[in-house]
Amino acid sequence: MPLYRITVAYDGTGYQGWQVQPAGPTVQGRIQQCLERMAGHPVSVVGSGRTDAGVHARAQVAHFQLDPSIPPDGLLKGLNSLLPEDIRVRQADHAPEGFHARYSAKSKTYHYYLDRSPVALPFRSRFTHHYPQPLERGAMDKAAALFLGRHDFLAFAASSSEVKTTDRECTASHLYERGHELVYEVKAEGFLHHMVRNIVGTLLEIGRGKMPPEYIEDLFESRDRRLSGPTAPARGLHLMEVEY
Amino acid sequence: MPLYRITVAYDGTGYQGWQVQPAGPTVQGRIQQCLERMAGHPVSVVGSGRTDAGVHARAQVAHFQLDPSIPPDGLLKGLNSLLPEDIRVRQADHAPEGFHARYSAKSKTYHYYLDRSPVALPFRSRFTHHYPQPLERGAMDKAAALFLGRHDFLAFAASSSEVKTTDRECTASHLYERGHELVYEVKAEGFLHHMVRNIVGTLLEIGRGKMPPEYIEDLFESRDRRLSGPTAPARGLHLMEVEY
Repeated sequence: MPLYRITVAYDGTGYQGWQVQPAGPTVQGRIQQCLERMAGHPVSVVGSGRTDAGVHARAQVAHFQLDPSIPPDGLLKGLNSLLPEDIRVRQADHAPEGFHARYSAKSKTYHYYLDRSPVALPFRSRFTHHYPQPLERGAMDKAAALFLGRHDFLAFAASSSEVKTTDRECTASHLYERGHELVYEVKAEGFLHHMVRNIVGTLLEIGRGKMPPEYIEDLFESRDRRLSGPTAPARGLHLMEVEY
Repeated sequence: MPLYRITVAYDGTGYQGWQVQPAGPTVQGRIQQCLERMAGHPVSVVGSGRTDAGVHARAQVAHFQLDPSIPPDGLLKGLNSLLPEDIRVRQADHAPEGFHARYSAKSKTYHYYLDRSPVALPFRSRFTHHYPQPLERGAMDKAAALFLGRHDFLAFAASSSEVKTTDRECTASHLYERGHELVYEVKAEGFLHHMVRNIVGTLLEIGRGKMPPEYIEDLFESRDRRLSGPTAPARGLHLMEVEY
């Protein structure tokens, strides 16, 4: 059966995350429903990974098989005409044999958006975490850089994580400003559950002066989730790119 | 009774416009409910003008009286804690005696956002009109400039408009690009009902080559709404500023 690869953007506000759940709408579920309607048979869509309830994606990647074959351009138009407006298929292509959205992924890039304006404008409030409190940017930059390289991220993983190893390698970890927003960009070969949101929660604690930047090293060593910062809200998190 | 002036931003998607209606939530209605809760008496909020269902505002201005007096800072915080997230009070001040949000207004600036990307990303789709079709920008620029100055805008007014004169003076009317978006900016001392959306609908017809730019002059002269373009969708329209 022909193999397809799609790139999907979504506003995660109204969804119980990417992955099909017993209750509540999910992005994967919506796409599968539309594909089933188009193909006339159940379709199993495999994403590059899960995103949690309320998390957004600018370029989630997924693969699936269809029989009979549908031209990629028709697939893109058909899906976008059936899908709700908060899920958009940005690209659809034939995938090379053996392509697997999850296992073929080399790295992923996430952004976390903090709205720093005194009053959060409603145009970005679904997509940013409003955080108007003063932050010591120098300390945060220092801390962000300490995530670069290979570390044991257990102290930044949700306890629900079931993985063989909690070692991950970050190839980007820095903050930059975009208008009234402070953006945290992080790129790694893979992420543990809640990892970005726990890193951001910890960076905010450091920005508030509650712990020094160097404490990040202690957290790696501690492997203790109770010592790192709180999980930042889902709404600020965006899966920006999956690299293959 | 002390007079107040507030500046309000809203995502108009979920509202039947600014002005209180017999059915459906309105922005004015929501603000009045919250003020009544805070002040303990009914409060009549007067805006700079109506916005239609689905139209947004970055800086709508309104005035009202409260008894007893509430410090502006407490008013801002209190309102924002009671209002839904899609309505935000950006500023609250004591207003000088005689200030009237509508009658004191000197001019207003609107933006209309067109999303020109092939697939509309969900992050801006509540706030833009997706228009990926090819457009002849030169013709549109020429046409946009013809709205400058004083003209009879009857051909661009909804037939529901009940006004003494349909003459209006535009002091800004031009297009510019912002990333994947094409923005129409227009500033005038006042606007007729649907005026901006009808101008944009006409500019799009001109961009598609359905009428030449100079036809704008004929439209002014015709005073006939049936000859101008269709009303562009509400979601692309934003009240950006009210000048006093």
